[in-house]
Amino acid sequence: KGHPVQVVITTVDHQFELDEDALAQILLQPNVRDKKISIVSVAGSFRKGKSFLLDFFLRFLNADGLPDWLGDEEAPLEGFSWRGGSDRDTTGILIWSEPFFLKTRSGEEVVVLLMDTQGAFDSESTVKDCATIFALSTMLSSVQVFNLTQNIQEDDLQHLQLFTEYGRLALEDNDNVSKPFQALQFLIRDWSFPYEAPYGAAGGRKILEKRLMISDKQHPELQQIRKHISSCFDKISCFLLPHPGLRVATNPHFDGRLKDIEKDFLEQLQVLTPMLLAKENIVLKEINGQKVRCEEMMEYFKAYIKIYQGEELPEPKSMLQATAEANNLAAVASSKALYNKKMEEICGGDKPYLHPDALQVEHNRCVEVCVDLFHSTRKMGGPEFCQMYEDQLKEDLTEAFASFSRHNESKNLFSAAR
Amino acid sequence: KGHPVQVVITTVDHQFELDEDALAQILLQPNVRDKKISIVSVAGSFRKGKSFLLDFFLRFLNADGLPDWLGDEEAPLEGFSWRGGSDRDTTGILIWSEPFFLKTRSGEEVVVLLMDTQGAFDSESTVKDCATIFALSTMLSSVQVFNLTQNIQEDDLQHLQLFTEYGRLALEDNDNVSKPFQALQFLIRDWSFPYEAPYGAAGGRKILEKRLMISDKQHPELQQIRKHISSCFDKISCFLLPHPGLRVATNPHFDGRLKDIEKDFLEQLQVLTPMLLAKENIVLKEINGQKVRCEEMMEYFKAYIKIYQGEELPEPKSMLQATAEANNLAAVASSKALYNKKMEEICGGDKPYLHPDALQVEHNRCVEVCVDLFHSTRKMGGPEFCQMYEDQLKEDLTEAFASFSRHNESKNLFSAAR
Ligand SMILES: Nc1nc2c(ncn2[C@@H]2O[C@H](COP(=O)(O)OP(=O)(O)O)[C@@H](O)[C@H]2O)c(=O)[nH]1
Ligand SMILES: Nc1nc2c(ncn2[C@@H]2O[C@H](COP(=O)(O)OP(=O)(O)O)[C@@H](O)[C@H]2O)c(=O)[nH]1
Ligand SMILES: [Mg+2]
Ligand SMILES: [Mg+2]
Repeated sequence: KGHPVQVVITTVDHQFELDEDALAQILLQPNVRDKKISIVSVAGSFRKGKSFLLDFFLRFLNADGLPDWLGDEEAPLEGFSWRGGSDRDTTGILIWSEPFFLKTRSGEEVVVLLMDTQGAFDSESTVKDCATIFALSTMLSSVQVFNLTQNIQEDDLQHLQLFTEYGRLALEDNDNVSKPFQALQFLIRDWSFPYEAPYGAAGGRKILEKRLMISDKQHPELQQIRKHISSCFDKISCFLLPHPGLRVATNPHFDGRLKDIEKDFLEQLQVLTPMLLAKENIVLKEINGQKVRCEEMMEYFKAYIKIYQGEELPEPKSMLQATAEANNLAAVASSKALYNKKMEEICGGDKPYLHPDALQVEHNRCVEVCVDLFHSTRKMGGPEFCQMYEDQLKEDLTEAFASFSRHNESKNLFSAAR
Repeated sequence: KGHPVQVVITTVDHQFELDEDALAQILLQPNVRDKKISIVSVAGSFRKGKSFLLDFFLRFLNADGLPDWLGDEEAPLEGFSWRGGSDRDTTGILIWSEPFFLKTRSGEEVVVLLMDTQGAFDSESTVKDCATIFALSTMLSSVQVFNLTQNIQEDDLQHLQLFTEYGRLALEDNDNVSKPFQALQFLIRDWSFPYEAPYGAAGGRKILEKRLMISDKQHPELQQIRKHISSCFDKISCFLLPHPGLRVATNPHFDGRLKDIEKDFLEQLQVLTPMLLAKENIVLKEINGQKVRCEEMMEYFKAYIKIYQGEELPEPKSMLQATAEANNLAAVASSKALYNKKMEEICGGDKPYLHPDALQVEHNRCVEVCVDLFHSTRKMGGPEFCQMYEDQLKEDLTEAFASFSRHNESKNLFSAAR
């Protein structure tokens, strides 16, 4: 009854492609295409139980509202492929081939899709890869489950900030009334401190409030991250899931059967799953405040992926790369400003004509001072990287000199009078 | 028998201070000051069992080589303060008040210190705070234990890259022969895939090789990170530690006694601890290839902290901050270059004199085009942040215009002849 379909493909050269045919087979089915849609996505680091969780979501949706949806104690867990081991499994973005149909309160039949994503931070993905997958799945879903382990750390928030900004940039035609994204569900796996905040949504709320709290006393950096995240989503919530037991985590022969999973975990799973997927809780996909139908969604997939295929967006880079770039650009700008200032003093418009040889000497002296300034400014990135910027700086100074020379020449009354 | 001493203090306004007196009481004791030293530090995310681990190191060092150093089944674990809960505990950098004395193979008595650090990424620390603590502890220690959970992820390597670069910048007087830092020990807690790579050092080596492998087929970003990390340390190794059991992780009444800890964990702990701390394995602190004595170490503490108190180093920022800065600086530079090019065409040195009113009109037109270019370049950071750069750009263009005006004026033969 269905299988995972890879709709967004990552190529070996770190590009993204949409498998339009595969997606059309899901979204453009006659009984699907004109229905409103809900897409629940799970994203986060690799090897953290994302696919495993989605397979329980599948069970719930397949059970069609029956209370004992968790199913047989002895049945292996199937669906999106999940497994032990420390290397990445899923790549790109997957959707379950079978849409699920639900009747909302108003009696309208809507479609629910489940989306699995390539785990972030595996050792073959660049920052841009991770940002693109996260941004795309956040733009496309009505609920993004941000899957974390043990805690919400500041670096998790920093990644969320970068990735959502990357999504927001792609949505520049947004109506500026609606927030760019809909629901964000933090999900903390292996929560270990139930005595501090209980498992489930209430405990999650407590932790989330603490982590996203903004106060004047905080460093501006911390405030900005929190403001940014709040400004991106209609609704943010958090759920604390207990550890499923060491058999789940460590046993290579574990195949997902219920009897090997800790009771606590299953209990909370029975709270979380309907919270996200029961018909009374489902969140329909909206774009610019309008509910979207499946055939329109098809167009959004195409449009969004196109943006990330283009060259227009700035590239998300690693912390060091981005810092090194900023450091060097700032240092180049300072050196250029210093050069212009010094040369203005020597041969500015209100200064007399200088013999070209004298001007050349002054130029050489100024270049030396400015390159020294560039050298002595501490910059990240290492010598090779900084050399590229130094070369650019020297080129720019040569060009600026050409312009100063021409201006100087124009003051030569003799030549001017010619 | 000793207690933790906070030697590096973080102030509420995110500054760092050295408690010289406290440090002197440890390093300048008469029987300590002239001995060579080994400093073992543990750093990484907050709430990940760093202090807990150090307390076992303390037991080992206190047992003075006896094989049953793990001690009493029923004894609570004491030393550096550790506890459950999701909020940060330790701040700054701590050192155990009692130096340990070991005889090396050559019969020389040396001193061993244990260093505990503020966990990274708690919700009160900025990127700069985390980078400073990590960089300082890496510069000061002979062995840095990089404490991770479950896996080595790409973001862990990215952080390591940024933090070590921040350390390397501070060491610019380095002799350029020795690598800037000594031993890096990756420690993966809660390793769950012993069937893939066995617990301990051999499994660690396997995982480390996989994660740090460099190949031509990799994206340059991935290659650079790996090259950077390898270039920073004399020696890099990795150890896989099993999960200590859910009692350790989750029970609020757990006080560290051995009988509550999984056998597997204790077994591996008995491998790891002597690997780092037995007298035949101890790594002595070297700076620029020279072994350092305790009283010299005192001076290095002072010198290093001073660098991080200064304003000279570039500030490590969050990924979004750094990217937004780089994007905006690059956009400003492009717009300025365009302005200069356009104005050169209008009133460059080889162009005739223009009436000031005409020049003003041309300037206004160029400014508009250049500000439009700035606007249309997609940049991270949001409108408020980008506005600052736009303001700067406009100021710079006004200044450039003043200089073009003066040059233009100088071509006015009448005024030039005055
Ligand atoms: N510690 C822990 N392990 C889990 C949890 N859920 C699943 N796992 C295990 O984590 C491993 C990776 O699961 P998978 O769903 O493939 O991870 P994904 O890469 O995030 O999709 C498998 O061995 C699962 O048995 C959880 O909540 N906690
Ligand atoms: N999952 C897990 N928990 C641990 C481990 N070691 C210690 N803990 C628990 O982690 C919590 C935090 O320990 P602590 O040493 O204070 O962490 P620190 O903030 O990194 O110094 C405590 O509840 C410990 O019992 C481990 O290897 N794995
Ligand atoms: Mg998966
Ligand atoms: Mg601690």
